[in-house]
Amino acid sequence: MKRNLLLSPGPTQVPPQICEVLSRPIIHHRTPQFQNHLKVATEGLKYVFQTKNDVYILASSGTGAMEASVCNLVSPGDKVITVEGGKFGERWTEICQAYGTQTKVIEVKWGKAVEAKQIKELLHAEKNIKAVFVTLVETSTGVTTDIESIGKIVKDTNAVLVVDAISGLGATDLQTDNWSVDVAIAGSQKGLMLPPGLAFISVSAKAFKLMEQAKSPRYYFDLRKAKEALAEVDTPFTPAIGLIIALNESLRLIKEAGLQNLFIHYARLAQGTRAAMKALGLSLLSDEPCISNVVTAVNVPNKIDGGKLVKTMRDTYGVTIVAGQGHLKSKIFRIAHMGCLDEYDIITGIVCLEKVLHKMGYSFTLGAGVAAAQKIFSA
Amino acid sequence: MKRNLLLSPGPTQVPPQICEVLSRPIIHHRTPQFQNHLKVATEGLKYVFQTKNDVYILASSGTGAMEASVCNLVSPGDKVITVEGGKFGERWTEICQAYGTQTKVIEVKWGKAVEAKQIKELLHAEKNIKAVFVTLVETSTGVTTDIESIGKIVKDTNAVLVVDAISGLGATDLQTDNWSVDVAIAGSQKGLMLPPGLAFISVSAKAFKLMEQAKSPRYYFDLRKAKEALAEVDTPFTPAIGLIIALNESLRLIKEAGLQNLFIHYARLAQGTRAAMKALGLSLLSDEPCISNVVTAVNVPNKIDGGKLVKTMRDTYGVTIVAGQGHLKSKIFRIAHMGCLDEYDIITGIVCLEKVLHKMGYSFTLGAGVAAAQKIFSA
Repeated sequence: MKRNLLLSPGPTQVPPQICEVLSRPIIHHRTPQFQNHLKVATEGLKYVFQTKNDVYILASSGTGAMEASVCNLVSPGDKVITVEGGKFGERWTEICQAYGTQTKVIEVKWGKAVEAKQIKELLHAEKNIKAVFVTLVETSTGVTTDIESIGKIVKDTNAVLVVDAISGLGATDLQTDNWSVDVAIAGSQKGLMLPPGLAFISVSAKAFKLMEQAKSPRYYFDLRKAKEALAEVDTPFTPAIGLIIALNESLRLIKEAGLQNLFIHYARLAQGTRAAMKALGLSLLSDEPCISNVVTAVNVPNKIDGGKLVKTMRDTYGVTIVAGQGHLKSKIFRIAHMGCLDEYDIITGIVCLEKVLHKMGYSFTLGAGVAAAQKIFSA
Repeated sequence: MKRNLLLSPGPTQVPPQICEVLSRPIIHHRTPQFQNHLKVATEGLKYVFQTKNDVYILASSGTGAMEASVCNLVSPGDKVITVEGGKFGERWTEICQAYGTQTKVIEVKWGKAVEAKQIKELLHAEKNIKAVFVTLVETSTGVTTDIESIGKIVKDTNAVLVVDAISGLGATDLQTDNWSVDVAIAGSQKGLMLPPGLAFISVSAKAFKLMEQAKSPRYYFDLRKAKEALAEVDTPFTPAIGLIIALNESLRLIKEAGLQNLFIHYARLAQGTRAAMKALGLSLLSDEPCISNVVTAVNVPNKIDGGKLVKTMRDTYGVTIVAGQGHLKSKIFRIAHMGCLDEYDIITGIVCLEKVLHKMGYSFTLGAGVAAAQKIFSA
C-alpha cells in the first residue's frame, strides 16, 4: 500500500499508458510491422530533439550514447574540450581520456555553469580542437548550461559541439538545429518517461564527416552502421523492441501536450519546488540564471543527516528523492521535476519532505513549503 | 484477432507472467529495493550459465556483450582465433578486426561445425593466441558447436575461450565451468524469454587477468568497472531496471522448470520439428551430430520462393518464422524452438507452414508434417 513516487532525476515516473504498452506481446524486429514503429519513433524523436538530423536509437543507457559520440568523433591524440561542473561533465573527460585524446578540461565550481566566453578563449588558445563536450543539465548539481551561446561560438570553428542532453531532453528547451548542436544525446528514462535501456543520438552533417574519418575502434556503437541501417528503416543490431514501441506512446503523449507547453509545465513545477524550499528556510545549490527546471539541488541544513533524510523519505514513506553525488554526496538532496509528474506529485513530495524534516528536528513552520508551492501553482 | 506466434530465433515469445512484470511502475536503481533484484538476478544467472564466475548484466543487445568480450580481452596486434560458419561467427571476426587484432579465421562450411582438432592445430601452429572466439549455436545455420571438446583443448593453453551463447543459453546445454569456458555471453531475447535489451557476460579468473592488462579503449563496456560495481551490488551505469526485474521472473520460471528439463523439452520440440520437415519432403541444412535443438534451418524446396513463404506465414497468418541470412537468405527458412513454446505452438507453426506451402503449389500430403510431429510428441 506504500506510495512509489519518483521525484528522482532518472528514472522518472512511467505513465500507465506506457506501462500498458510495455506489457504487450513482443514482435519480431526484421518485419514491416516493426519498421513502422521504428519510422514513427525516429520521426517523433526529431520533433523532441528539434532537429532535421537523423536520430539513432541505441540499446544502451545514456552513457553508451556518450561513448558513441566520443568513439565516432575522435582519433587517438585528438584535442577536445570538456567542461567539468559535476559528475556528468567529469564523465565526458573520462570517456575522452579512455580514447586517448588530449583533453582540455574547463573546471567549473559545482553549482555554476560554464560561460560561453570560457569556451571561446580555449578554442582560440588551443589549435585544432576536434570537439567540445558539454552538458545541457548537469544532473548532479541542477545546473543548465547556456547551449545557445556556446553553439554560436563553436559553429564558426572546425570543432563540433556535442551536448549531453540526457537529463532534460523533452523537459527543458534544446534547439538542436537552431543552436548549432552537432551531436545531441538523450536517454529513455528522463523526460521521455520510459524505463532505462534506450539512448538517442542526433548527428549533424558536420559531425558525420568527422565520424567517417575517426580512427577509434568501435562496432556496437559505430554510427556509420546505424546510419546505413536507418536508411533501410532498420537497426544494425537487435533493437530493444519493447522499449521502442513504448517510446512511440511517449512521443504521442509529448506531441499531444506540445513540447513548448511541457517546458512551461516543468518550469512551473520547478518554480513551486524552489519556492517551497526557500519557505522551509533551505538554500539552493545553484542560482539564476543557470538554475535548472528539471532538477533542483537543495543544500542539506546543518545538523541534518542528508543520507538519512533521503532514505527515510524513500524507504519509510515511498517518496524517492536522491542524495548528492561525488563530494556533494551528503551535502545536498535533489528533487526532480520531469517525466510524468504534476503539481499534486510535487506537493506530495514536499509534504513528505516536511514530515521527515520535522521528525528529524529541523526547525520550521510545518506546512510553509506546501503553502509556498500552492501559491505558485494557483497563480 | 490475428495470432502473433513467434517461432523466430530471437526475439522469442515472452510469457504473460513476464509481460505483467514489465508493466509495473519503475523503481529507482540506487536503492536497496533494486539491489535486492540485482542480487537475485546475478545469482540466478549463475544457475543458468552453470558457473560460479561473476555474471555481469549489460544494458545492450548481445552484440554489445560480444564487443565487451573483445575490447576487454585484447590489445591492438594481439593474435586471436575466430570461427566463421555463419553470420554470427563472422561477427566475431568483424569485432576482433575493428580492435586491430591479428585475426586467424577458421572457415567452416555453413551448416557444419568446427572440429576441436582444427582449433588445436591452429593453437599449435600460431604462437601466443590470446583468445578463441566461438559460437554455441550459430543462429544463421542451426548448428551447435561442441564447446566441451574445444574447452578441453583451450584450457591447457594461455588462450581464453570465449563463447557466444546468445542463441541457446537456457535452451541448450552450456556447462560454463565444467567445460572451461572463460567468457560466455548471452542476450535476454532468446532462451531467457524477455524482450531484447539486456546482455549477460560471465568472466573466469583467467579471463579477468587478461582484462586487467588489455589496452583497447573502453568505457561503457569496461568490465573492470562492472566487477567493481557488482562487488557493491551495483552497476556502473544506469541499468535497464524494468528488464532486470522481469529477468527475475524469467529466472524463477526457469528454476521452477529445471534447466535440464528445459533442455529435454526443447530437444523434443526440435525433434518434432525435424520429423515434420522430413515428412514434408524438406531437407535440413545441417545434420547430426552438430544439429541444433534451438533452431532448425530448412532448405527451401525448388521452385518455392522462400521470401514469400516467410512473409505470407507472418503477414497473412501471424506465424513468424525467419528467412536465411547472408548468402543463404532465400535458400533456407528457420524455425526456432526456444523461449516460451510448447508442442501445440510447434504444431501450429507446422499447420501454417503446410497451408502456405500447399497454396504455393508445393507437392506433399497435407497433414503429413503435423502427423509426424504428433508422433514424436505422443511418444
